[in-house]
Amino acid sequence: MVEIDISRGVLEKNNQIAEENKKLFQEKKVLVANFISSPGAGKTTFILKTLEGLKDIYKMGVIEGDIATKIDAERIKEMNIPVTQINTGGICHLDALMVKRALSNFSLDEIDFLIIENVGNLVCPADFPAGESLKVVILSVPEGDDKPQKYPLTFHQADAVIINKIDLLSFSDFSLDAAIQAIRALNRDVKIFKVSCKTGEGVEEWIDWLKEKIGEVVKGE
Amino acid sequence: MVEIDISRGVLEKNNQIAEENKKLFQEKKVLVANFISSPGAGKTTFILKTLEGLKDIYKMGVIEGDIATKIDAERIKEMNIPVTQINTGGICHLDALMVKRALSNFSLDEIDFLIIENVGNLVCPADFPAGESLKVVILSVPEGDDKPQKYPLTFHQADAVIINKIDLLSFSDFSLDAAIQAIRALNRDVKIFKVSCKTGEGVEEWIDWLKEKIGEVVKGE
Repeated sequence: MVEIDISRGVLEKNNQIAEENKKLFQEKKVLVANFISSPGAGKTTFILKTLEGLKDIYKMGVIEGDIATKIDAERIKEMNIPVTQINTGGICHLDALMVKRALSNFSLDEIDFLIIENVGNLVCPADFPAGESLKVVILSVPEGDDKPQKYPLTFHQADAVIINKIDLLSFSDFSLDAAIQAIRALNRDVKIFKVSCKTGEGVEEWIDWLKEKIGEVVKGE
Repeated sequence: MVEIDISRGVLEKNNQIAEENKKLFQEKKVLVANFISSPGAGKTTFILKTLEGLKDIYKMGVIEGDIATKIDAERIKEMNIPVTQINTGGICHLDALMVKRALSNFSLDEIDFLIIENVGNLVCPADFPAGESLKVVILSVPEGDDKPQKYPLTFHQADAVIINKIDLLSFSDFSLDAAIQAIRALNRDVKIFKVSCKTGEGVEEWIDWLKEKIGEVVKGE
């Protein structure tokens, strides 16, 4: 099929720009995390919790990917954290070039931790690294425990998986054991967090882990 | 950007094959519906309810789109309804050519209603019609009532929107009014159904509507 040949070129170009972004982040000692999930898995709320938990310790910035609206960026702006909105105009993922362009809105010397909130999509973002060193994948309980098997590349690439909305476990057929087993089958050593942004359960453990990761980069060699 | 020029060609080619599929469906008097949603919105369970509600009246078939597994197709096969699995191997949507190829597995003269279950994705399937005459978009309560605004093209194109998992309304901030208003702003005359596959609420109304649609096609002019 013609499409595959075409996209190979697009992917190679993306990988090249992602490498350039990555080098820049290393130079500037910025930890960059790319947050990926289905629509409605709770990415923005989870990111707000993350910003809340880190804001007294680290300087942060957010790149917000959305197809059409600014709803999420507005929520982050209210926290007085620098945020740049990328409206992809229908494109199903952020790519390295979009992120590179957005970087001109930030002063990277003054940022320790940069969050990229990708477009809600469990498929396409996996093919387009943006130079991040952490991929954080969010799976919410109402989506079902079979999603790792059905979207394997995304879960295979993750550095951390957040099982979100665990407050809904008792209203759902979701099996934590089955989900964790499916994730581990794709990605043996990935860090898994069970979280409810509603009750706050699991958030502290996540923040502690992330603090360590940011600390390693900021103190850097 | 190069990508946009490339995809224009891909889209044109897809539209052309979709038109050919559409003509064939009209000739054979088959109603074809393309089911689109986020991962985990409950597409397969809703399709099973639909098959159950129609199986004594109409002859049906299902084309199952999935990136990697056969989980959904197996569930449908148990109902003794002809099903063809398309594993897209990482591609984020079904396209008209994939559907055209799958059609060789069906005897269209013996089918009244063909269901296409797309890959779980609220973005990309909107760009790739497959020749269907109904687009059915499923939005589940846990995803949040802002999703129509955030994925406007998909909701704009819908012939029917299923607001699914309404049994979870009381555990969620989801506002039915806000969701319906957001959908209507994009698509004034779309038919909206409020459904719970768990309690069965709203399923009958959907089946009645669909029976009429299939009846129109099968009886034909």
